Amino acid sequence: MSLLVVGSVAFDTVETPFGKVEEALGGSALYFSTSASYFTDVNLVAVVGDDFPEDTTDFLASRGVNLDGLQRTSGETFRWKGKYGYDLNEAITLDTQLNVFGDFHPELPEDYRSASHVFLANIDPELQLEVLQQVEDPEFVALDTMNFWIEGKKDALLETLSHVDMVVINETEARQLADEANIVQAAHSILEMGPDFIAIKRGEYGALLFTERDTFFAPAYPLEAVFDPTGAGDTFAGGLLGYISQNGHLNPQHLRQAMVVGSCMASFCVEEFSLDGLRELDSQSIASRFSKFEKLVSFEPLESL
Amino acid sequence: MSLLVVGSVAFDTVETPFGKVEEALGGSALYFSTSASYFTDVNLVAVVGDDFPEDTTDFLASRGVNLDGLQRTSGETFRWKGKYGYDLNEAITLDTQLNVFGDFHPELPEDYRSASHVFLANIDPELQLEVLQQVEDPEFVALDTMNFWIEGKKDALLETLSHVDMVVINETEARQLADEANIVQAAHSILEMGPDFIAIKRGEYGALLFTERDTFFAPAYPLEAVFDPTGAGDTFAGGLLGYISQNGHLNPQHLRQAMVVGSCMASFCVEEFSLDGLRELDSQSIASRFSKFEKLVSFEPLESL
Repeated sequence: MSLLVVGSVAFDTVETPFGKVEEALGGSALYFSTSASYFTDVNLVAVVGDDFPEDTTDFLASRGVNLDGLQRTSGETFRWKGKYGYDLNEAITLDTQLNVFGDFHPELPEDYRSASHVFLANIDPELQLEVLQQVEDPEFVALDTMNFWIEGKKDALLETLSHVDMVVINETEARQLADEANIVQAAHSILEMGPDFIAIKRGEYGALLFTERDTFFAPAYPLEAVFDPTGAGDTFAGGLLGYISQNGHLNPQHLRQAMVVGSCMASFCVEEFSLDGLRELDSQSIASRFSKFEKLVSFEPLESL
Repeated sequence: MSLLVVGSVAFDTVETPFGKVEEALGGSALYFSTSASYFTDVNLVAVVGDDFPEDTTDFLASRGVNLDGLQRTSGETFRWKGKYGYDLNEAITLDTQLNVFGDFHPELPEDYRSASHVFLANIDPELQLEVLQQVEDPEFVALDTMNFWIEGKKDALLETLSHVDMVVINETEARQLADEANIVQAAHSILEMGPDFIAIKRGEYGALLFTERDTFFAPAYPLEAVFDPTGAGDTFAGGLLGYISQNGHLNPQHLRQAMVVGSCMASFCVEEFSLDGLRELDSQSIASRFSKFEKLVSFEPLESL
């Protein structure tokens, strides 16, 4: 099984109440790839500028991520600058420089086209569709999006949505996409747009999975120290899709485990700045954190009332 | 086992995007009592004015709630008026008239003094302490509070806190009480003030239970129709304390079940205005909803990674 991801690679400058990093590795595709690399073979499609040092990608290569689809273009790499207050659920964007990402058109190397699983990270829905047109016959396709595209490219987004199996999206954006305040109704309304599954991310409150008939809730782990929530959503998606791709088949129990695996990976992500929380994990530490999630929500059936 | 509750009885006028009720039954003690009455014997201490019609309490009496401690005083009953937007997590208070509640001093009838379990709903911490001084030797005491007392009567609140076993409190208020943004650290800091247990209410995101060594998360049930969140927190506390009192003893598994029972009862509460969602339940409908909570969060252990 292999997992294709298309998204952004960026340099992030992030300030939280607990510290600051300048021009650290970031972007949806990097968080996603790193997280997913613990579970499956990842093929990355993204673009960087000629300011992107060769050795910066060494880490990804060391994680076994295939970088054949990482384009290098004349210009500067995408940069994002943001800060968080004590409410770590909401980032304040201070500066966005799209740079080479502004003209990005994903081109899939030949050996990427047979990908069994695909994640279309949060980029222009027209580009997401371009990717899908280059993939031969994927088993499972998931998509993320954001308010910017919901407002500005709704038709293209709806077209792309009709070709995917799963949506992974923030709670506020789910409400906006469905034009519906109640999250259960919003989820079902989005399922009617095409996908069979919708995973709704609620930041430190966990994530919900809806299918037409079923609802599952994966909590976020209550951590004593959250340093930097940047990338948590893409890290969640990386764990989720990585685990789905590793298992290769979809059944309700695997999907539930995959949601918790996503939550696990996100919990490692937010404990450090940039990708630092994801650099040195192993199967044992992931399995151990997964067990903590089991303990967090486990309770016995009622015998009587 | 018996459960003593002291708190407010009110007439609420509430507007949500889905409708409006005028002068409907409300108040912390009424929501709590109704909810707890499905599990244990409840003894109510509160005050109403001479405008409070005899037959309005018939419902509580029909639920077996002991009203001997319900004082009737010359004046008007406490009234609250509020509204909610589509974000049902936050009420906007339009009007508060304390009326007879402003001069309330709880007096416990003789047969209330042997209560095994006590819930001090959100009232002046000095009054909460007055109640405790009148109870002989309770096995388990829990307390709720709010920003108004945390800001204005911190010393009295800390004194009362040192005499209770459990705090049941909103997330924002837990942060404020502990003066700490991280919720895990806030919880542990509050445990150091005296209680052995803290239940942190997160509205539609569920509730967390912390002890010194353990953390449990009870989700809120994702509902297709939430009409009126008024009283959900007190209904949660009623289920939680009612179930603890019914079982009579505390062990980690019962506590976890009690948290989920609280969440169950709150899920019934928000489906209707005022107490209407809690009027006609039976053991079977509660047990059936409890099973839905099990299904909502259940997942299998990882076999391997």
